Amino acid sequence: MSELRLFLMKENYENSRLPEQLADSSASYKRLNLYGRDVFVSWPGNLTKDIADQSIESSFLVNRDYVLSSRDWKSTPTKIPVGDVEIGSDSVVIAAGPCSVDFEEGAEEFSKDLKNAGANIIRGGAFKPRTSPFAFQGKGKDGIDILKSMKDETGLPIVSEILDPEHLGYFRDVDILQIGSRNAQNFQLLKKVSTSNKPVLLKRGMGNTYNEWLSTADYVLGEGNGSVILCERGIRTFENGTRFTMDVGSIAKAKEESHLPICADPSHAAGRREMVLPLALASVASGCDMILVEVHPHPETALSDSQQQLTVDGLKILSKQIRSIKKSLVNGL
Amino acid sequence: MSELRLFLMKENYENSRLPEQLADSSASYKRLNLYGRDVFVSWPGNLTKDIADQSIESSFLVNRDYVLSSRDWKSTPTKIPVGDVEIGSDSVVIAAGPCSVDFEEGAEEFSKDLKNAGANIIRGGAFKPRTSPFAFQGKGKDGIDILKSMKDETGLPIVSEILDPEHLGYFRDVDILQIGSRNAQNFQLLKKVSTSNKPVLLKRGMGNTYNEWLSTADYVLGEGNGSVILCERGIRTFENGTRFTMDVGSIAKAKEESHLPICADPSHAAGRREMVLPLALASVASGCDMILVEVHPHPETALSDSQQQLTVDGLKILSKQIRSIKKSLVNGL
Amino acid sequence: MSELRLFLMKENYENSRLPEQLADSSASYKRLNLYGRDVFVSWPGNLTKDIADQSIESSFLVNRDYVLSSRDWKSTPTKIPVGDVEIGSDSVVIAAGPCSVDFEEGAEEFSKDLKNAGANIIRGGAFKPRTSPFAFQGKGKDGIDILKSMKDETGLPIVSEILDPEHLGYFRDVDILQIGSRNAQNFQLLKKVSTSNKPVLLKRGMGNTYNEWLSTADYVLGEGNGSVILCERGIRTFENGTRFTMDVGSIAKAKEESHLPICADPSHAAGRREMVLPLALASVASGCDMILVEVHPHPETALSDSQQQLTVDGLKILSKQIRSIKKSLVNGL
Amino acid sequence: MSELRLFLMKENYENSRLPEQLADSSASYKRLNLYGRDVFVSWPGNLTKDIADQSIESSFLVNRDYVLSSRDWKSTPTKIPVGDVEIGSDSVVIAAGPCSVDFEEGAEEFSKDLKNAGANIIRGGAFKPRTSPFAFQGKGKDGIDILKSMKDETGLPIVSEILDPEHLGYFRDVDILQIGSRNAQNFQLLKKVSTSNKPVLLKRGMGNTYNEWLSTADYVLGEGNGSVILCERGIRTFENGTRFTMDVGSIAKAKEESHLPICADPSHAAGRREMVLPLALASVASGCDMILVEVHPHPETALSDSQQQLTVDGLKILSKQIRSIKKSLVNGL
Repeated sequence: MSELRLFLMKENYENSRLPEQLADSSASYKRLNLYGRDVFVSWPGNLTKDIADQSIESSFLVNRDYVLSSRDWKSTPTKIPVGDVEIGSDSVVIAAGPCSVDFEEGAEEFSKDLKNAGANIIRGGAFKPRTSPFAFQGKGKDGIDILKSMKDETGLPIVSEILDPEHLGYFRDVDILQIGSRNAQNFQLLKKVSTSNKPVLLKRGMGNTYNEWLSTADYVLGEGNGSVILCERGIRTFENGTRFTMDVGSIAKAKEESHLPICADPSHAAGRREMVLPLALASVASGCDMILVEVHPHPETALSDSQQQLTVDGLKILSKQIRSIKKSLVNGL
Repeated sequence: MSELRLFLMKENYENSRLPEQLADSSASYKRLNLYGRDVFVSWPGNLTKDIADQSIESSFLVNRDYVLSSRDWKSTPTKIPVGDVEIGSDSVVIAAGPCSVDFEEGAEEFSKDLKNAGANIIRGGAFKPRTSPFAFQGKGKDGIDILKSMKDETGLPIVSEILDPEHLGYFRDVDILQIGSRNAQNFQLLKKVSTSNKPVLLKRGMGNTYNEWLSTADYVLGEGNGSVILCERGIRTFENGTRFTMDVGSIAKAKEESHLPICADPSHAAGRREMVLPLALASVASGCDMILVEVHPHPETALSDSQQQLTVDGLKILSKQIRSIKKSLVNGL
Repeated sequence: MSELRLFLMKENYENSRLPEQLADSSASYKRLNLYGRDVFVSWPGNLTKDIADQSIESSFLVNRDYVLSSRDWKSTPTKIPVGDVEIGSDSVVIAAGPCSVDFEEGAEEFSKDLKNAGANIIRGGAFKPRTSPFAFQGKGKDGIDILKSMKDETGLPIVSEILDPEHLGYFRDVDILQIGSRNAQNFQLLKKVSTSNKPVLLKRGMGNTYNEWLSTADYVLGEGNGSVILCERGIRTFENGTRFTMDVGSIAKAKEESHLPICADPSHAAGRREMVLPLALASVASGCDMILVEVHPHPETALSDSQQQLTVDGLKILSKQIRSIKKSLVNGL
Repeated sequence: MSELRLFLMKENYENSRLPEQLADSSASYKRLNLYGRDVFVSWPGNLTKDIADQSIESSFLVNRDYVLSSRDWKSTPTKIPVGDVEIGSDSVVIAAGPCSVDFEEGAEEFSKDLKNAGANIIRGGAFKPRTSPFAFQGKGKDGIDILKSMKDETGLPIVSEILDPEHLGYFRDVDILQIGSRNAQNFQLLKKVSTSNKPVLLKRGMGNTYNEWLSTADYVLGEGNGSVILCERGIRTFENGTRFTMDVGSIAKAKEESHLPICADPSHAAGRREMVLPLALASVASGCDMILVEVHPHPETALSDSQQQLTVDGLKILSKQIRSIKKSLVNGL
C-alpha cells in the first residue's frame, strides 16, 4: 500500500506556488485536469505534508492504492453522457448485444430489435481474447464495421472491447472502449487507451480484489481521462454452480466509495441463460448504474458463449424488470 | 457423487409391493413421509431400475448428492407457516434481532420496536459458536428465556441457533431452530434436531458448495422433517472488502432447483452496517423469500458483531425497501 | 478478534495471589494445567494489565483469537508419544489405512502389509460424515472392532474419526481421536472429546482460515488436553484440477508460530492417486511432522474415495521418499 | 472448451497431402515447426477426423483448451538451455535477484554475491507493473542496463519482465523474457513477445485456473516458439496468512501433463521472508525444475516488496537445501 497526497485546487485559481513547492520537495508528483478542476497527486504523501497555499481548496492524505477514483476529493457522482443517455443517472442504462459479432446478415434488423427491447447502447465483441489461441478470435475490423452499421441504423452508441493500442484506429466510431477482465491489469493498454479521451468501460479482473479494481481506474484517470465506468463481472471462487460469483458487495461498496458509475455484467457471472435475469436484478438492487448483457439473434448457434446469451424476448423482460426495480429503489430513497 | 432413486407414491395408495421389492433388491432404501406423501429413496439407484408397481406415481434416477430438496419430485414450492406468516409466499418474511441476546433490561420494549419496524419473527443468539473459546459464548438458557419474554410481549415467533442436541429441552418455546454456518455439516446435530419436527433454518457453511448446501437439507428431510429453510450467508472468497461474499447466484439457483424456501443473511456477509441494506436488496432481487438481519438496541455496545448490527431505524428503512422491491418483482412476473 | 492475557506460572510456585486478583478484577478467566505447568487465561486482556505477582513467570497480551496453541508462551515444540513413536520429533510419522474400513476379511493381513510398507499408525474410518445421507456411512462400531484387530495384529496404534460425543465409549481402544474437516468448528464435539485426554488429530475446516484453524486447537487445549495434532488437508479454492488446494504456506506458518505438531493429509487434497506422492513430499518439505494417507487393499472397489487411495506398493514408495527428504532437511538445518 | 486436432508429422517426411486436405476441409488450421518437427493444429477437431496420410506420424483429438503444451504429442520433457545451465534437467535452476533493480552502486559486487550464493541466473525488475500508477514503476531502460552490467560481471544470463512489445528493443541482451501474473492473459503481448524467439518465463495469473495457465503457453508455442517455462507464483484464495497460496498441486499436475519445464516463485506466494524457504522446498518437492527468488542487497530499503526479499545469506541456505532435497528426490526415483 502506498501513501499518496491529493491536492484539489480552487476553481479559477491564480498565482499558485504549489507546482514550485512540489518541485522543491523530494516527492514525485503529477498534475492533472479532471472534471474541469486541477488536481495534483504527490507521493509518498508524507513528504508534502507541510505544503500550504491559498490556491489549494483541500488536500487529502490517502493510505491505500487508489485515490483518483475515490470520493475523498469528489463527493458528487460522475455522470458520463453517451448518445442520448447519461451513465450514472437515476435510470439504469442497458448495453446489449452479442458476445461476439459473428453474423453479418440481419445485423441492422437485429439492432432495431435490441433498441425496441430496451437497449440504450449496443455492445458487441470484434476482437476476442480467448483462452485458447485456436478458438474463434472474433471478426476483428469487420466486426467493428458491422457494429457501426448497427449504430447507423439505430442511432445508438456502441461499446466494444479493445485488446491492443495498435487497434485504436479501428475504434474511431466506437463510443465506449471496453477493457476486458483478462486485461484489467494490462497497465500499458489502460494508459494508451486513455489518451483517446473516449469513455472507458473497465472490467474487474476475475482474480482482482476490490482495491485492485478501483486502482485500475486510477490508471485511466491518471492520464486525465475522467470518463471511466467500473464494471463488475463476477470473481473466481470455489463455487462453480455459476460460471463466476457476482460480487454484489463490491458493487455496493464501489457505489459508496467511488464517484464513478458502476456497471454489472450478469452474463459472464451467470454462464447460463436462466441465471442472467436474477443476477441482473441483484446487481441493480445493490446499486449499479448500468447493465451489460449478452443478447444474440440465435444464441444456440453463437460462436462463443452460446449458453449464456439471451434472446431478444429475454432482453425485453430484463429491461422491464430492471427499470421497475430501479424505480422502486429511487422512490424508496 | 452417489446415484439415487426416488419413488414418489400415489396418494392413498393401497397394496403396494414396493417395500417388498426393495427388500428383495440388493439396494439400501429408506421410507419417508414428506408433505403428506410417501417417498422411498433407494441407493445405489441403478439396482432398483426394474422395479415397477401400480402404487408408484413416478420414479426418478438422480446423479447428484441431493434429491429430497430438489424439484425433481416436488415441483410446487414448499411454504412453511410460522406464527402469522408463511415463509415461501409472495411477501418477504423478516426475522430481526440481536446477534446475541446480551441485554436483559428493555428486552420487551425492544421487541415491540422490532415489530413496529417490520419484523415478522424475532431472531437472537443465546448459544454462540465463537472462533475463540475465550470469547463471549452467549447467555445460554437465560438468553432463551429473554427471547421468550420478547415472544410473549409481541406474539412474534422466535428463531435461535442450537449447537448441541442436548440443549433441545431449552428450545421448547423456540419456533425455528437455526443451524449455524460452522455446524452446516455437523450431520449428527442435523439428524437429531430434525426429530423435534420444528422448522429448521439451515445456514450454508462458509466453505460449502451449492451442492453440499442442498445436500445438508437432505439430512433433515431424510428424517421426515419437511420444514427446512435454506439460508445463504456469504461464502469465503479472496475478496475481503466485505466480510463474506454474498452468493446471489446460489440463491437464484436454489430458488430454481429446490422446492424449499430460501433465506438470506446480509448481516454476516456485509460485516459492516452500511453494506447490510444493499446486500439485503440484492438477495431479495435474486429471489430469496426471507431475510435474517441483526438489529440491536445499542449496536455500539453489543458483545458480538457490533460493527454489523442495524439500529431499529435502519430496520425500518430496510423493511420498507425490501417490500417495495418484492412487490415490483411480483408484479413484473 | 478478542484480546486475551495469558499468565504462565512458575514451576512449583506457592502462595500465589493471582486467582484472588483475577476474581477481584472484572475480567473472566480460566485456570488450566498444560504440559505440567499452570496457566491462567483472562479476557478481555486489558482488564488484568496491572496484575503482578511473584508466582507469575511471565504474562502475555495477545491480540488475536488463539493463544494456547501459539509459541508465545511455549517456545519448545510439543511432542506427542503414541505407541512406539513420537509425533513432532525428527522423523515423519506415517498413519496409513483405508478411507473407510469397508472390508472384514483380510484385515489382519492388510495391517501387516501396512506396517511393512512403513506405517507407524493405522488409520481407518468407521463413522463417516458423507455429503449425502444416502451414501455409505461407514461400518460404525463394527469398523472400530476391525481396526482393533489390526492393532492387535501389528501392535500399531490406531486413529479414527469421531462424529458424536455419544460414541466415545466405542473409541476406548482408539489411540488418537480424529476430528474431521466438517466438524472442525463443531465446538461442542471438540470440548467433549477433549475430556477423554486422548490425543486429538484436528483437521482444518476446508473453508477455515489459518487463524480459525489454530483457534480450534485452543478449544481442546482449553479443556486441559495438550495432545493436539494440527492437520492441514487442503482448502477450498477456485482451482479444481486437484480436489482441494494443499496449503503448504499454512503448514510452514503453523510450524513457525505454534508449538503443536503438524500433520498433512495429501489424499483428500489430491483427490486422485497420482497426486498423493508429490503433495506428501511438498507437505514434508514445508515442515510437517506427520502424514495421514489413505491406503486400501483394493482401491478400485473401495466404498468411498476409491480414486485417491494408494495401494500398499504406493505406500512403500511414499514412505521411502518421505523419509529420505526429511533426512536431507534435518541434515541441512 | 474447444475441440482440437493435432497432427504430428514424421521426421523428414516428403510429399504430404495434409496441407491440401486441411485446406479442402472446412476446418481452420495452423502449421508450426516445434522442436524440429512439423505440427498441424486444426479446429474444430471433428471436421478433420477422416484425414489420413502416410506423412502423419500420429494424430490426436483433444477435448480441452490446451494442446501444444501437453504431453499428448510430446512425451519427452522439454529442456531449455540458458547460459551454462539447462532448465528442465535433473538439477534445480535458481534465478535470483531484486524485485526491482532500484540501486546502481554495488550492482556488480552484488551480482558476484548472488553467483557465489548459488544463483544460475540473475533476475531483476526494470519495468514494474504496480497496482497504483503512483507507485514506483521501476527504472525502465536504465534498470536493464544495470542488469546487463551484472551479466557482464558474472557471465550469468538474465531474466526480466516485459510489459509492452514496444520495449522489445531494450531487451536485446535479456536472456529470458518474463511475462508477469497481471499480463498472463494479455494475449497480444504473448504473441508479439514470442516472435523474438527468446525463452519465455510465463507466470500463472493469480486468478487463473490450471487449464488457463497451460493454455497461455499455447499462445507462445502457437507462434513457433517452443522455449516456454511455466511459472507458478501462488493463487488468490481466502487465506491471507500468506500473500498468495502456492499451488503445489498444480506444479505436480503440470509436471505430469506438460512437457514444459516448471518454475516456482516462492517470494510472491510467501509475502514475507521467513516463508520463502519452506515454500521453495515444497515447490521443489512437488516437482518444479526452477526457482525464481527475490534477493536484495538491502531488503529493508527496497522500493518494492521489501518484506519478502531474501538477503544473500538467505539465498545461500536456500540454494543448499533446495539442491539437497532435489538430490534425494532424484535418487529416490
